[in-house]
Amino acid sequence: MKKLINRPADVVRESLEGMAAAHPDQVKLNSDPIFVYRADAPVKGKVAVISGGGSGHEPTHVGFVGAGMLDAACPGDVFVSPTTEQIIEAIRVVQGGAGVLNVVKCYWDDMDVFAEAAELAHAEGSPVANILIDDDVAVSESVYSHGRRGTGTTVLAEKICGAGAELGYDLSRLADLCRRVNVNGRSMGIAFTPSTVPAKGTPSFEIGENEMEVGIGIHGEPGRERMSLKMADEITEMVALEIINDPAYERTVQEWDTDKGEWVDVDLVDQPLQSGDQVLAFVNGMGGTPVPELYIVYRKLVEICQKKGLRVVRSLIGSYITAIEMQGASITLLRVDEEMVRLWDAPVNTPRLRWGA
Amino acid sequence: MKKLINRPADVVRESLEGMAAAHPDQVKLNSDPIFVYRADAPVKGKVAVISGGGSGHEPTHVGFVGAGMLDAACPGDVFVSPTTEQIIEAIRVVQGGAGVLNVVKCYWDDMDVFAEAAELAHAEGSPVANILIDDDVAVSESVYSHGRRGTGTTVLAEKICGAGAELGYDLSRLADLCRRVNVNGRSMGIAFTPSTVPAKGTPSFEIGENEMEVGIGIHGEPGRERMSLKMADEITEMVALEIINDPAYERTVQEWDTDKGEWVDVDLVDQPLQSGDQVLAFVNGMGGTPVPELYIVYRKLVEICQKKGLRVVRSLIGSYITAIEMQGASITLLRVDEEMVRLWDAPVNTPRLRWGA
Repeated sequence: MKKLINRPADVVRESLEGMAAAHPDQVKLNSDPIFVYRADAPVKGKVAVISGGGSGHEPTHVGFVGAGMLDAACPGDVFVSPTTEQIIEAIRVVQGGAGVLNVVKCYWDDMDVFAEAAELAHAEGSPVANILIDDDVAVSESVYSHGRRGTGTTVLAEKICGAGAELGYDLSRLADLCRRVNVNGRSMGIAFTPSTVPAKGTPSFEIGENEMEVGIGIHGEPGRERMSLKMADEITEMVALEIINDPAYERTVQEWDTDKGEWVDVDLVDQPLQSGDQVLAFVNGMGGTPVPELYIVYRKLVEICQKKGLRVVRSLIGSYITAIEMQGASITLLRVDEEMVRLWDAPVNTPRLRWGA
Repeated sequence: MKKLINRPADVVRESLEGMAAAHPDQVKLNSDPIFVYRADAPVKGKVAVISGGGSGHEPTHVGFVGAGMLDAACPGDVFVSPTTEQIIEAIRVVQGGAGVLNVVKCYWDDMDVFAEAAELAHAEGSPVANILIDDDVAVSESVYSHGRRGTGTTVLAEKICGAGAELGYDLSRLADLCRRVNVNGRSMGIAFTPSTVPAKGTPSFEIGENEMEVGIGIHGEPGRERMSLKMADEITEMVALEIINDPAYERTVQEWDTDKGEWVDVDLVDQPLQSGDQVLAFVNGMGGTPVPELYIVYRKLVEICQKKGLRVVRSLIGSYITAIEMQGASITLLRVDEEMVRLWDAPVNTPRLRWGA
């Protein structure tokens, strides 16, 4: 295992200590329980936006803490969910009296700990909305989830909702916005190589020199199929068309109703992309893929979108939701309206995403 | 070879087409000869800051084109210098009547083509200063250079001088500033894995499962020695102490004297870092190393700097000058004064480095 680390058990803590030392104006680190929070938290009167999940997907979520995005991020160990204790303590530290929006990726364990934390926060008097991100069109059941997994749309939801919170959106409006981002976002990824969890020390799967995994998950869990390597344009077309041609996706999710103080069923449906839609195109690297390769994917993606009548009005290209050092990429297309674009463009000041500030 | 590319011969052009499509407000692409330039070039009355070199080191230099940094970047093929024609044509397109600062990394071929371009530009009436970056303390002779190689300090010089140009510094002041950044910057790197040049298709060197290369060059060329893997803290300490304990480095370089219209010898000396100095600490990934590992390095680096009486006043952490998908990292310490810090903090608006804009 070739990694720039010390003891595997110390990877998460030491990297976060380094991040906090490098960006003292943006973030602080709480040591026990461990979480990263905005340097100026709590921001009085603002809804706090919080996320979390296993480490190994950086900069998701810890690198997105700061003004205009997340108030706190709760990291588990590599590919392991955080604990309820981390989340409730982060809520206590960053909530500014206007409630808390938790952005939760669709994986069993993440959903469980955020659900427990929402109930605890409610009991302590903090209104909470847990909004699920389930945008990965590749599979409907996986090793870690029932339903679609939460991937690239998470990054976009955190940016857009973080900007809304900064502008004074109340919790109900922000929850609606986050739900709207989720049902308008679709993702799918491929991988050329596995990644190695430090504590395990060996690659998460085996793959041939001329093979790739299509529909890969961000933990290296299997996707749809193993196939021979193809050229970037072919891969891009294959993945983009799966996203664009994906039919309406209907499901019922549970959301915490903070007024009633109970869980309620919410019916969601993703309407397919159609000609005339404006989209934000996000080409994400899985950690070990150089940025120029992502631009090659983006080049083809724009061409495909144009052919399908989709207008790419904004883009994000880089390694933002990763699987440690995995080589591969994912594409996310988010159908955007004017409000989402305005919030996307708003200033953001975090360790790994920054503009206008 | 597992890469998200089409034909190897098209990698550079296609990735730049994708980059230009993604960032139309920041950059434009000139196709023949190929170079990237500021979308609003030429900026009248401003010194144009230009760089270039082989591709494969992205975001260096193409990702740093835009307001507050480079006016143009001329990319060669992967690990191959650009041509004189690319540079002189970029100068013609972006020069705004106040002269041109070329930031040139110390490699034979880069120096040759920038020297020819300076003479041509001079003949066409454009005052030009070529300032060399030779900051790599690892070796004094290498496969591609006589004298120290140009590495991490290049990124810092481009940011700082780009900000100076934006503020209206004239060519002479900007050349002095760039020279000052160079003689105050020192770098050294290590690698765990080789990289693969697309046109070649096989790794640039072989290395054992438990080995690393210390003092690696950004083309994968050998450094000082091959040794057994060590923990991140040990590696960081070894590299940081080589940089901090590096003695005065004296050499004579040739610079173009635009008043005389001839090459003149300039004696340079890097004074060792000493207790009380303020530094910008730059932890750079070689392309395939996840950012959390770079933060682990940064964490230890700050501790070592403190012990040595160096005050880390600014930092940059990420993969900014790379060797395609190589796993590894480099450290750059730049002794800064108040002017450099002010220019570092100034707004920058490029595809891969952006803040305050």
